[in-house]
Amino acid sequence: MDDKKRKRRRPEPSSDDETRLPFKNRLKPDSIILESLHDLLRTHSASSSNSKTLTLTELSLASTCREVTDLSLPSVQSAIESQILKIAHSILSGHGFSFDVPSRSAANQLYVAELDRIVLKDKTSLRPYANISTVRKSTITTRILQLIHQLCSKNIHVTKRDLFYTDVKLFQDQTQSDSVLDDVSCMLGCTRSSLNVIAAEKGVVVGRLIFSDNGDMIDCTKMGMGGKAIPPNIDRVGDMQSDALFILLVEKDAAYIRLAEDRFYNRFPCIIVTAKGQPDVATRLFLRKMKMELKLPVLALVDSDPYGLKILSVYGCGSKNMSYDSANLTTPDIKWLGIRPSDLDKYKIPEQCRLPMTEQDIKTGKDLLEEDFVKKNPGWVEELTLMVKTKQKAEIQALSTFGFQYLSEVYLPLKLQQRDWL
Amino acid sequence: MDDKKRKRRRPEPSSDDETRLPFKNRLKPDSIILESLHDLLRTHSASSSNSKTLTLTELSLASTCREVTDLSLPSVQSAIESQILKIAHSILSGHGFSFDVPSRSAANQLYVAELDRIVLKDKTSLRPYANISTVRKSTITTRILQLIHQLCSKNIHVTKRDLFYTDVKLFQDQTQSDSVLDDVSCMLGCTRSSLNVIAAEKGVVVGRLIFSDNGDMIDCTKMGMGGKAIPPNIDRVGDMQSDALFILLVEKDAAYIRLAEDRFYNRFPCIIVTAKGQPDVATRLFLRKMKMELKLPVLALVDSDPYGLKILSVYGCGSKNMSYDSANLTTPDIKWLGIRPSDLDKYKIPEQCRLPMTEQDIKTGKDLLEEDFVKKNPGWVEELTLMVKTKQKAEIQALSTFGFQYLSEVYLPLKLQQRDWL
Repeated sequence: MDDKKRKRRRPEPSSDDETRLPFKNRLKPDSIILESLHDLLRTHSASSSNSKTLTLTELSLASTCREVTDLSLPSVQSAIESQILKIAHSILSGHGFSFDVPSRSAANQLYVAELDRIVLKDKTSLRPYANISTVRKSTITTRILQLIHQLCSKNIHVTKRDLFYTDVKLFQDQTQSDSVLDDVSCMLGCTRSSLNVIAAEKGVVVGRLIFSDNGDMIDCTKMGMGGKAIPPNIDRVGDMQSDALFILLVEKDAAYIRLAEDRFYNRFPCIIVTAKGQPDVATRLFLRKMKMELKLPVLALVDSDPYGLKILSVYGCGSKNMSYDSANLTTPDIKWLGIRPSDLDKYKIPEQCRLPMTEQDIKTGKDLLEEDFVKKNPGWVEELTLMVKTKQKAEIQALSTFGFQYLSEVYLPLKLQQRDWL
Repeated sequence: MDDKKRKRRRPEPSSDDETRLPFKNRLKPDSIILESLHDLLRTHSASSSNSKTLTLTELSLASTCREVTDLSLPSVQSAIESQILKIAHSILSGHGFSFDVPSRSAANQLYVAELDRIVLKDKTSLRPYANISTVRKSTITTRILQLIHQLCSKNIHVTKRDLFYTDVKLFQDQTQSDSVLDDVSCMLGCTRSSLNVIAAEKGVVVGRLIFSDNGDMIDCTKMGMGGKAIPPNIDRVGDMQSDALFILLVEKDAAYIRLAEDRFYNRFPCIIVTAKGQPDVATRLFLRKMKMELKLPVLALVDSDPYGLKILSVYGCGSKNMSYDSANLTTPDIKWLGIRPSDLDKYKIPEQCRLPMTEQDIKTGKDLLEEDFVKKNPGWVEELTLMVKTKQKAEIQALSTFGFQYLSEVYLPLKLQQRDWL
């Protein structure tokens, strides 16, 4: 009996045990990893100062594509007043009341490889008042112009929901006012933020970043575990300062919490940001602003499934719905750090922590393979092809199978050490 | 022609126009409203220092009801070790391996009017290992106990999703590990926060509050428009200080943004908090902690629909699923400030900004009328009865029909001036 017992008793494997924490023993001292990160930053700064951002004009696309820019409130007001004046002239000269509205249909979208983002082509359509099929939309357009003019005078921000409620009788449902709001952005040639209409906030940021939010200086190393909520109105964000070596863009909340609690940003100076799922406009604007002002490389940590890559692509080259503003909403050159399909075998993620892809997942994966922004990156094509072939996906959380802190203590440091991003 | 023009030209109505901004002319100077708020705070402090919180023992319910408390990490560890020791003794004495698990079924719930919250009764059920129907659940229970013991040794926090992924093969799906996690809380007699398992964060706070988050001091008057994300782990929140006169609990994001941008908390000293919809555990814990430590009255601003009142009730007296921890999760004595069904006529909310209630809405409303926590407040019964009768609901945003800042400049100040809460 005593013998039997002894046999059964196994020593608790030490935490360095290679089978329990794969690759932990390959980790070099932090100083070496940090050196590699300094390298990354140097290369990044050099390339970003050499390669100035191309414009539509330089690509000879200015006459066939349309873009919006940030405008000051007085400029937005003047733009609205010009529109209305133009219409008044048109009416007085007997040509009637009509808006010329840029089309945002799929057929009017163009992926420009040199810019690595989707842009809007220049097709427009007339929206006459004296036509039964467009009278409502042209009335809504006029009303939205009036409301925006009001917002600019008062210099306050409202949500799309607020805007809808100012005239429910006319708008009938919110999709109608939302859609015309995007039309108005295009028409006036300014970003939606310039209109002072904001979306609800969703993202949080923590780490080596100091910035001003509506006049208050925020130190994101002193935001505890909760982090700082990303402000909904980017125009009141400024004065960004940072000693970070990179920005870590995280898809999900759970991974963000792990990294915030472990104060990962103190071990490897970085800024950690997440939109908690689907990227919202505020987080996209904030990420771009950080990248542009601080000139930092962006590394993305997303689930190993088609939606992870899709999310990366929205941050990187924009969504079709808001392509007219892709220049302001997209962050170029985001690197895919993980979890990549090839990591599943490489990091020995156990079978039971992987999930079979559904038919829909596989279809989304195959569709992504046809997208230009994936095709231009051979590494991404290879990874995505592997995913669709193995029909397996995995969440970032799957790494918890090796212990709750495997993500922050082994996986991410090793990735950084090996410069293992695509 | 000139005459015609003159007739058509109407003067822009002034912003004080009674028809455009109903009741604006009834607003008294802020100093008078502030005096009324100081009164509220005085009454509140007096009543909260007189009426000590009743306990289950004082109500002679201690033997028939079950509650959990916050335990320190070493205490949680000891509790786990005692459980395991008890089981070892049971096995050695020939009685086998079995857990005695508190039942969390609906039949085991009790609303206690004196406490104004739901509590868990004392029924338990055996979960023997040597039984085909419970062998899996008792194995899962053992594994969760082991994992929690580990978390306590390391003193780190993880999400429920992380916990699931540490042993996918055993847990199979997350509902199983989640549900056993609640069982383990009940069994050990401690809150889920004590187990260091946290939910994703969702809420934000802004206004007259200073507190520490994981060692960092946070000044919520200096959080710009975005506010401070509410930390997911309440045990690292402390040192709350405030000169606020009340806490304003807001259901939705859009209203929160309006009040944050207008810095409403500077005009009427308050703390503004929202969970952006359904209350999550972190926001509920945070609200309770504020109310308890700062001894402030809580005023709630929710949509005028059954879900608004439902949300108020979850903050106030708890959800059935976590009734075992209702003492820690609930905030007693929340006042219903608005939007109340009677406000729709009172504030002349136009018909087109009201929405018809669906069959489901009406059913939820009628069900709520049967709930004890509604019945004990005659004012609430009256309002809810009116809602079900008129079959109309409205969002907070409906007030935007009178201008984007009507909420912060007229509606709320007037509500406070008239002490119009229930």
